[in-house]
Amino acid sequence: MKNIITLTTDFGSQDGYVGAVKGVILSINPKAEIIDISHQIPAHNVLAGAFCLFNSGSFFPEGTIHVAVVDPGVGGKRKAILIQTERYFLIGPDNGIFSLFLRTEKIKRMVSVTNPKYFLGKVSATFQGRDIFAPVAAYLSLGIEPKEFGLTLPEIARLSLPGIEKRRGGIIGQIIHIDNFGNLVSNVKAQELNEFKIMKIKVRKRTIPQLSRTFSEVKKGELLAYIGSSGFFEIGIREGNARLELDAKMGDQIEIQI
Amino acid sequence: MKNIITLTTDFGSQDGYVGAVKGVILSINPKAEIIDISHQIPAHNVLAGAFCLFNSGSFFPEGTIHVAVVDPGVGGKRKAILIQTERYFLIGPDNGIFSLFLRTEKIKRMVSVTNPKYFLGKVSATFQGRDIFAPVAAYLSLGIEPKEFGLTLPEIARLSLPGIEKRRGGIIGQIIHIDNFGNLVSNVKAQELNEFKIMKIKVRKRTIPQLSRTFSEVKKGELLAYIGSSGFFEIGIREGNARLELDAKMGDQIEIQI
Amino acid sequence: MKNIITLTTDFGSQDGYVGAVKGVILSINPKAEIIDISHQIPAHNVLAGAFCLFNSGSFFPEGTIHVAVVDPGVGGKRKAILIQTERYFLIGPDNGIFSLFLRTEKIKRMVSVTNPKYFLGKVSATFQGRDIFAPVAAYLSLGIEPKEFGLTLPEIARLSLPGIEKRRGGIIGQIIHIDNFGNLVSNVKAQELNEFKIMKIKVRKRTIPQLSRTFSEVKKGELLAYIGSSGFFEIGIREGNARLELDAKMGDQIEIQI
Repeated sequence: MKNIITLTTDFGSQDGYVGAVKGVILSINPKAEIIDISHQIPAHNVLAGAFCLFNSGSFFPEGTIHVAVVDPGVGGKRKAILIQTERYFLIGPDNGIFSLFLRTEKIKRMVSVTNPKYFLGKVSATFQGRDIFAPVAAYLSLGIEPKEFGLTLPEIARLSLPGIEKRRGGIIGQIIHIDNFGNLVSNVKAQELNEFKIMKIKVRKRTIPQLSRTFSEVKKGELLAYIGSSGFFEIGIREGNARLELDAKMGDQIEIQI
Repeated sequence: MKNIITLTTDFGSQDGYVGAVKGVILSINPKAEIIDISHQIPAHNVLAGAFCLFNSGSFFPEGTIHVAVVDPGVGGKRKAILIQTERYFLIGPDNGIFSLFLRTEKIKRMVSVTNPKYFLGKVSATFQGRDIFAPVAAYLSLGIEPKEFGLTLPEIARLSLPGIEKRRGGIIGQIIHIDNFGNLVSNVKAQELNEFKIMKIKVRKRTIPQLSRTFSEVKKGELLAYIGSSGFFEIGIREGNARLELDAKMGDQIEIQI
Repeated sequence: MKNIITLTTDFGSQDGYVGAVKGVILSINPKAEIIDISHQIPAHNVLAGAFCLFNSGSFFPEGTIHVAVVDPGVGGKRKAILIQTERYFLIGPDNGIFSLFLRTEKIKRMVSVTNPKYFLGKVSATFQGRDIFAPVAAYLSLGIEPKEFGLTLPEIARLSLPGIEKRRGGIIGQIIHIDNFGNLVSNVKAQELNEFKIMKIKVRKRTIPQLSRTFSEVKKGELLAYIGSSGFFEIGIREGNARLELDAKMGDQIEIQI
């Protein structure tokens, strides 16, 4: 049973684009269970979409079909892809949107989606979410085999997160995501820090004296550093907003002294 | 089986109004499948709600019940209506919110919803989404006949889109919708342009030399004109936001020279 | 059958936090029906979350499980609670988020959720929505008895709304919620006013001459006072936004002269 289809898009919800995608899916498989992950990914921001899917995709039951559409290259040369992993099916544009999620999933098959038999009757040049990705997901949920949608693909596009810099005395990372609470997510993974005792953290000219385990270890309004629920090193403020307080933005440097 | 009930509203999601509507529906028909189309229609903007439903409504399976509530006249003299088309059921205020969608649907019956038997026990004067439209949709999904909800209505309110102006040498249209990506949707339909060769497009003192089929035909950051997925002539920017770049707003003129 | 699980959070939707919660629930109970009430509660605003649930919770069918997570104290000393009322189950942090809703529900049992058997394998210090509240809701929906989750709790945290002041000649209340339409919801309940004839209402130096039943009783753009759909005395503007027009904010005083 592959009935759960999740949606992660930058469509917003006010234009009816999401509604069209849902309608197409339900017209093909009325028993599909559509789950909204997000339609508020910032427009054209593939990395933000990738991060959202990375944070949520692996918690779904085996067999779930994840559709992700943040697609600045729609209508151009980028392929439409279907990826089968050991646990999931992923459908979307071949622009790297699945690449963070795929770090922890084992790929079984990658397909270039080209078979028009499974597209909406008339494919528009600007809305493949509705015309290709939605019907392909719906047919897949009905049990159509991945290989029916097109030929095997030898490789897919991958996003690369900016690397961290390791120095004697520390690690230099940067902000790769800022969440709804204004927490600053860095590219430094928990594993990178396991062996070290952290002495000091510097970000935006502010200094944080140590790693905390939870927000309640500091006072209300105080900065803290912690390992976030995604497994990355983060900076936050208890009951506050670190992005606003530090005027922080994507790419800002975080220095961890050890 | 009429189990799918879609919701299109200007309620936003933070006040619990949407939750109340969903709760009422599920209390009457626990098997109803509620699908969110949008709760982010700009407050009181009936045209925007109509456009959202126009973009999405026709993609749903036959028998779907579309509830649309953008209702600046709540509690006043406007009627509550139930429209049965060949494929769907539409429920909401009689203020034109269904009129764009109805251009492509064949009406079978129009009913003035007045039978309090199908309302929530005590009807408030300010929240008919919860007290009238939600329970009526739920009872309809249980198989109650449309005629049970009230008497046949000879006519309903219609929104009129602003007309285009045809001149020798061109067509003058205007912006009737701006989407989440900042794309400018005009009132000029694809059919109006079929017979012509477009020489030039003028909007907000900018000139676009031709009609493109897709965003990838221009360079990143460049303006283009194309037929959008709704079937209207649109102006956009590849990987950009035409609304911001042109400081465009609803009603701005678009001149298509042929 | 306890299959409906509603979600009310301040997670926003762009980070994948909501997706993770949904995935966890569906992995444990694939038949759970997840209903979004809101993910747009302002960050850390427990009162706003409580108000949202108050407006919507009681409309759901008996047996519904309401999960509410606005949790500024995550990882600290506040308990995780499960409350069984005559009609519902409530799961979330013990910070008062359920207290407005509970004014109209009869409590049968209160449990301190501590049994790690029903938590996600590894509980993070910062995301108990995913790691505790979601799996507990899912196991509860599978029929696990409330008492299995932990010991009975003698009392829970309660929010207190600011009180109204009754004087000879009137009632002084204040704004406790501002909704999506800019309507100003006060802490004055309908019952407080039942016995009186209202002579005049004063708010932000503006005067409203009487209580209206519905928006259509005043002209477009005019201020009015009415009993809102939540049962509180409210100030609004017909087809307008009272918050913007009056530059009103939470806590502003409303004077009702009788």
